Amino acid sequence: MIEKIKKDLLINISKDRYLHTLRVVDTCKKLAINHNMDLEKTTISALLHDSAKFIKKERVVDLAKEFGLLDKSKKPYNTELLHGPLAVKIAISKYDVVDKDILNAIKYHTTGRRNMSLLEKIIFMGDYIEPHRNFEGIQIIRNLAFEDLDKSLLLALDTNIKFLIESKKTISIDSIDARNYLIEENLKKRR
Amino acid sequence: MIEKIKKDLLINISKDRYLHTLRVVDTCKKLAINHNMDLEKTTISALLHDSAKFIKKERVVDLAKEFGLLDKSKKPYNTELLHGPLAVKIAISKYDVVDKDILNAIKYHTTGRRNMSLLEKIIFMGDYIEPHRNFEGIQIIRNLAFEDLDKSLLLALDTNIKFLIESKKTISIDSIDARNYLIEENLKKRR
Repeated sequence: MIEKIKKDLLINISKDRYLHTLRVVDTCKKLAINHNMDLEKTTISALLHDSAKFIKKERVVDLAKEFGLLDKSKKPYNTELLHGPLAVKIAISKYDVVDKDILNAIKYHTTGRRNMSLLEKIIFMGDYIEPHRNFEGIQIIRNLAFEDLDKSLLLALDTNIKFLIESKKTISIDSIDARNYLIEENLKKRR
Repeated sequence: MIEKIKKDLLINISKDRYLHTLRVVDTCKKLAINHNMDLEKTTISALLHDSAKFIKKERVVDLAKEFGLLDKSKKPYNTELLHGPLAVKIAISKYDVVDKDILNAIKYHTTGRRNMSLLEKIIFMGDYIEPHRNFEGIQIIRNLAFEDLDKSLLLALDTNIKFLIESKKTISIDSIDARNYLIEENLKKRR
């Protein structure tokens, strides 16, 4: 299955995106070993996380419509937030993935969400810190991902929210839920 | 009614909070004149916005329970987010306020929300920029509130979100909805 996915990716997504995917797989596997997560689940989730980032954006829109992911509301359309849910549909229909944890890790890899599983956290962070990512503060987040996954996740989410504010872009409610949950849980622990 | 509210405020909230309220009334009235909003509605909303910030926090909790505002979920309890909705209950039960716009302006004065009315924006901004507020960037927001209310609102929301991130505090979903809406509407206008 893993070799089949790799072959398909080489056809469907750009070379750069494919190489990014391999780096995410590698980083996620290191995180998985460090945090005791199943390696096969990790590999499949990481391989498929960007499988819907087709070279042609129209194909994302067309397929999303086919799978019923696009509501025809008047909201401005954002392909960036669509590739996770669409990759889930591909995982189910093309590779018969049924594992809910894998599907959620793929679905929420860009935004995060409230109460994430270990696998979801690993895929989110692997994507965020893979070796080619380069921005202010990345090394701190990179190290923290192995020492304290929740702390690194909160820092990554907050860094991303601040970036979206500076870029005058909308912020996903799932990302806010993800960080609020981490803060609330941390407060509870300290009580 | 305005004199009765003032008398009650002097009994129920601290002197500092009362003086803050008078400054908010004054600032909101200036904004209202600038943006063509009804002055009586503005005055009543501004006078009542912090009417539930009782000196004793237990009274906030007790009254909120009495009015059915407190669900007994396990979420950490946040009085800061409660004083707006509680002030609405006071406005209705004590002063017979029925105007939905006034009630919403009171309810959402701390967080903002998606698709705010002119009155809601004026009360939010008046509270945010009253003369005693002092933090980095306040003067830009203060001037902008008279020139372009939406731009000042977005900047105020974003400044507040960044402050909450630095303070490691939870962020209200209503505030995110408020800013996302302003960005989406602005994008639509440019199309």
